[in-house]
Amino acid sequence: MKCSKCGRNAVYFKRSSGVAYCKSCFIEYVEGLVRWTINKRKLFDWNDHIVLAVSGGKDSIVMMKIVSKIEKNFPNVKLTAITIDEGICDYRKEGIEISKNFSNEYGIEHLTFSFKDFYGYTLMEIVEKAKRYGSPHNPCTFCGVLRRKILNVKSKEIGGTKIATAHNLDDEAQTILMNILRGDLDKLIRSFKMESYRQEGFIPRVKPLRYVSEREIALYAYYSGINLYSSECPFSKFSLRSEFRSFLNDYELKHGDVKSSIVSFFEKLVDKITIEDVQLNRCKHCGEPTTRDICRACELLEHLNMI
Amino acid sequence: MKCSKCGRNAVYFKRSSGVAYCKSCFIEYVEGLVRWTINKRKLFDWNDHIVLAVSGGKDSIVMMKIVSKIEKNFPNVKLTAITIDEGICDYRKEGIEISKNFSNEYGIEHLTFSFKDFYGYTLMEIVEKAKRYGSPHNPCTFCGVLRRKILNVKSKEIGGTKIATAHNLDDEAQTILMNILRGDLDKLIRSFKMESYRQEGFIPRVKPLRYVSEREIALYAYYSGINLYSSECPFSKFSLRSEFRSFLNDYELKHGDVKSSIVSFFEKLVDKITIEDVQLNRCKHCGEPTTRDICRACELLEHLNMI
Repeated sequence: MKCSKCGRNAVYFKRSSGVAYCKSCFIEYVEGLVRWTINKRKLFDWNDHIVLAVSGGKDSIVMMKIVSKIEKNFPNVKLTAITIDEGICDYRKEGIEISKNFSNEYGIEHLTFSFKDFYGYTLMEIVEKAKRYGSPHNPCTFCGVLRRKILNVKSKEIGGTKIATAHNLDDEAQTILMNILRGDLDKLIRSFKMESYRQEGFIPRVKPLRYVSEREIALYAYYSGINLYSSECPFSKFSLRSEFRSFLNDYELKHGDVKSSIVSFFEKLVDKITIEDVQLNRCKHCGEPTTRDICRACELLEHLNMI
Repeated sequence: MKCSKCGRNAVYFKRSSGVAYCKSCFIEYVEGLVRWTINKRKLFDWNDHIVLAVSGGKDSIVMMKIVSKIEKNFPNVKLTAITIDEGICDYRKEGIEISKNFSNEYGIEHLTFSFKDFYGYTLMEIVEKAKRYGSPHNPCTFCGVLRRKILNVKSKEIGGTKIATAHNLDDEAQTILMNILRGDLDKLIRSFKMESYRQEGFIPRVKPLRYVSEREIALYAYYSGINLYSSECPFSKFSLRSEFRSFLNDYELKHGDVKSSIVSFFEKLVDKITIEDVQLNRCKHCGEPTTRDICRACELLEHLNMI
């Protein structure tokens, strides 16, 4: 098969659009898709201090590479990479090294913050205690809530104005499906409106890779010479996501591009909905913005007598 | 396990509500749920002529039994049962017999209309021709579109004011998921707003069983002495639905009641959306209401040179 753009040998065929790409046209296509996402959804301003949430996995490294390339044209934009060390045995060690090295390569300052320093406990210690307390939450709940809190607090401390996360098309489609199956409309709408949240104390979170599929990111990493970081989180078996990932991948194999359909379905839908501004309070414990009295992070730790 | 209502031996335990039912409390519960649906969604008026779309399958017979029981208290309501004979070999024969017998038992007039009489062709003949023409549509598409048209036309002829179909909770959850995976927001919203459509020439379609699960309907049929009609449509393997059915059933086994969550998610959502009234035209061929120039039924048959 030949590249539909330049006629060289194709390395990737996008079934939904019927377009074949050679290596360099594919790289251009992915970068163009991210640029289009940033423009279409107005993710960044000309003078943003963008905090890149980087785990060291392929998605976040690809995000860092592409965003830093795009934002080079905006001299008033500042980039900082942050890696959170949750403290899951040695799992994150390699990711931190990789994040540091690539940040260095792309000329971006890199910072690491740990659960241990911030909360006084590693995720392992929290999960152990949750088990003893018979908590109904799985490790991914603690990890997600506590990670988002550090990111928000630390981004504010360094003057960040946006937090960019490396969620891809697969993640987005899974999230939509998961929330639909849970019947959680409000959570879903919130997660889609996150990037337009402009509330004091809350740094808007944006997703430049939301239209790029997991497969395309992996291929992009491979063809642009990014070494893949392959170790898997030991808790990933607890994640509900894996079921949705399998279902969507199976379905896609048989019936074609379904993830884009789901995301576009939900975008059209959210456009039809007028959402009242959520009134954010300050957490009584830590002062972070929250829709409740006590933020979710403090609530989880309080239940375990860990604050 | 004992019935949570009366202490007799339980025959059904509803996991999501934690309530156990004996045989007679279960029958009461299902009938109450249908009554609640009719009231909550204002499905019927005191002087409606309700056309029950009855295939002879367990769902439609259960609908006929419960609706006729409820509507006995409304002397100005008229009920008529209609069965459509699509002409799929001998598949519908048994269903027509069963529909006639139960209509008779419940004191409801029963009418049968066939594809052959109405369109001049049986579904088998249409499907055969579609195959020769290389049509991209599967048999279920022809069947659904053509069945809905006869129902609307014949209901009008006999003075019907509502068409009640026996879609259950499983059907509804599958429909929502299917349309989300196809990215078809408008179709989904239309299908949810169907019961409040008040447009000339279009009989509103209502679903009294939409909150009752397939399993509960089967149990209700069994405990109230309705003999199950078990033959399966020979085309059912073509239906996309079966994949969604399996996924939802598997998911429910592991994580509990997901179908209600999906339906309630979508109901909350539709409530947040203001929908402009769709302007219905008259089909240029047959005069039936349609959002297009030519209605879908005429369009499908025209492509096959069958009108």
